[in-house]
Amino acid sequence: MTRSITILGCTGSVGRSTVALIDAAAPGTFRVEALVANRDVAGLAAQARRLGARLAVVADASCLAALRDALAGSGIETAAGPEAVVDAAARPADWTMAAIVGSAGLPATLAALRRGGVVAIANKEALVCAGEIVLAVARAAGATLLPVDSEHNAIFQALEARGGGTDPYATVEKIVLTASGGPFRTMPLEQMAAVTPEAAVKHPVWSMGAKISVDSATMMNKGLELIEAVRLFPVPEDRVEVLVHPQSTVHGLVHYSDGSVMAQLGSPDMRTPIAHALAWPARMAAAVPKLDLVGLGRLDFFAPDPVRFPALRLAREALRAGCGATTILNAANEVAVGLFLDRRLGFLDIAVVVEEALARLGAPAASELGAILALDAAARDEAARIAAERVAA
Amino acid sequence: MTRSITILGCTGSVGRSTVALIDAAAPGTFRVEALVANRDVAGLAAQARRLGARLAVVADASCLAALRDALAGSGIETAAGPEAVVDAAARPADWTMAAIVGSAGLPATLAALRRGGVVAIANKEALVCAGEIVLAVARAAGATLLPVDSEHNAIFQALEARGGGTDPYATVEKIVLTASGGPFRTMPLEQMAAVTPEAAVKHPVWSMGAKISVDSATMMNKGLELIEAVRLFPVPEDRVEVLVHPQSTVHGLVHYSDGSVMAQLGSPDMRTPIAHALAWPARMAAAVPKLDLVGLGRLDFFAPDPVRFPALRLAREALRAGCGATTILNAANEVAVGLFLDRRLGFLDIAVVVEEALARLGAPAASELGAILALDAAARDEAARIAAERVAA
Repeated sequence: MTRSITILGCTGSVGRSTVALIDAAAPGTFRVEALVANRDVAGLAAQARRLGARLAVVADASCLAALRDALAGSGIETAAGPEAVVDAAARPADWTMAAIVGSAGLPATLAALRRGGVVAIANKEALVCAGEIVLAVARAAGATLLPVDSEHNAIFQALEARGGGTDPYATVEKIVLTASGGPFRTMPLEQMAAVTPEAAVKHPVWSMGAKISVDSATMMNKGLELIEAVRLFPVPEDRVEVLVHPQSTVHGLVHYSDGSVMAQLGSPDMRTPIAHALAWPARMAAAVPKLDLVGLGRLDFFAPDPVRFPALRLAREALRAGCGATTILNAANEVAVGLFLDRRLGFLDIAVVVEEALARLGAPAASELGAILALDAAARDEAARIAAERVAA
Repeated sequence: MTRSITILGCTGSVGRSTVALIDAAAPGTFRVEALVANRDVAGLAAQARRLGARLAVVADASCLAALRDALAGSGIETAAGPEAVVDAAARPADWTMAAIVGSAGLPATLAALRRGGVVAIANKEALVCAGEIVLAVARAAGATLLPVDSEHNAIFQALEARGGGTDPYATVEKIVLTASGGPFRTMPLEQMAAVTPEAAVKHPVWSMGAKISVDSATMMNKGLELIEAVRLFPVPEDRVEVLVHPQSTVHGLVHYSDGSVMAQLGSPDMRTPIAHALAWPARMAAAVPKLDLVGLGRLDFFAPDPVRFPALRLAREALRAGCGATTILNAANEVAVGLFLDRRLGFLDIAVVVEEALARLGAPAASELGAILALDAAARDEAARIAAERVAA
């Protein structure tokens, strides 16, 4: 059975890995319906030709002519602009990778979910800011959400062994997300105030962009993942824990009531969760480095330090306050990290700005997309204001 | 749905844990059909009364009168002798625990398999000596074999995430059994020759009997488990590996072709795999100590040392030679361990006796029970002879 595929965000890191896995699979395994990129016309056209895609779309409308030139004579349909992106997501496909970064990816992700099928979610914001909407749309359309984040994918896999029964989650005692702890895992608090953007983006294990590297250094990344986990898996927030594990080899664990703890391990390589999602409910090969536990020698585990890393507490508080609060947390954090990267805010002030934004804006209900986007904008303004006040003080 | 249960070997360690789990389960979850013990009449009678069993059987015929006295007025049926044991195993039940130790348990295990249903296997010898027969009988009757050994149960659970597809084992790259490494994991070879029975039975993690503790110290236990694994899971011998892991927290792992490695972890407590088997394909609660990775702090992994621990090599050689050779390996090892515990053989001589028995007896085919039992007896005689020659030399 050939699986038809659409990739939203095909020229980013997750998109490129997805394309490479499809390209390496046995002929007839996949057929590419649509590829959607932001503005990398050359990259998009090369992928579309190689995979024989039916449709190639650029989000930036000014790139349409260039895309047409690049695909001239290929027979591949072309389109451009935000509406074309949503139209591409709405075209029938068995499987969609939702990997457009940020809130820009939300409308397309929702369009893909609305037509059912399997949607692999690499867009963290979709679940953090609009989790309730995303889940409601998926439920109504009978779509299956597969997490591509390595930790959530690990937990999804560990939950495959949960067994049957009337309520298969009744025996899930605890879900555990691991965290590398970032580059400042052992740094004393008094030194953390002076951390530079250069030091913060040096992640010890994963190679990532600047924003997510800073989130890893503050552990806000794990806070956002905690929110994602509670949205994806039907267990209450107090049954989801974070475990610091510097080797990033165990990606996630599920504790069951019989004492069994199921874990997914692997080399830190995004191709593994992407391949898992691509082939699910079967499996496919991925040319990733083999896990070598003898070579690693040891795996370490620590409890997260709540004093030096307040982000986890903030994420839990936002989760308890509801969907509006998690939107504020995410937006305020994005603004604060941007200011830190511009050297206009201290490292420890990132969490201070987020906490203050949550305090000032409260926990407004935001259950439809327009309200969420408005709240997102308000939180960004408020965070910028709070940061300016701190710098002035 | 109430599950009807028979326990073969109810007063041993595995049997008692099974009884305790059934006793603690919600009323109506289980109904006990038959309990079978060797000669512990008081223990058997107490269990039968408490669980309301329909039938209680002692293998030792001389204990029948005592059993009748102990169960007088209870309405519980009683029987005794080897044939009564097999009859009890053959009575209809949804689920059977096959926990009679040694080759004595084989006829009853086969009788339980012949009537189909789920059979939890705690009898290692059944798979090591008579694996081909056991599997053939299970296949013919449509019985499901569930491993209760913690390592195999872990692998069974990790295989639950193998996914669908035409051949779900095609994506299983490697199955890994963990080994504590026993009390002599780091002892230099020259000191190992002088090891005493007292030192050998001190297992660092699990609390076990003398024979299995010595097997753990020589790593022959892991060799027998390697044979079990190859019989239970349809992968070739060279895709099953042993990993030394002193904390005995990760019990087993499965490496998949997408880079995912699924593992089952837990406190070293037999109640977890027994509960898993009892409730499978659902799960049930078991009052075992919770796994605390932060408390443990670290998990270590080493490759097994083939020079100081030749047992793994011998097990692989026997596996390649076939079912007759694994019967010889097991029988010769039992004799050699017995002589070591009696201080009539050195610790390092255990493997020497096993290797020599394999060399002298070759790899005769033994595909029916009579031939296997004859080969088992011949191997015991030969091993005793080899040991006597070594002591005389």
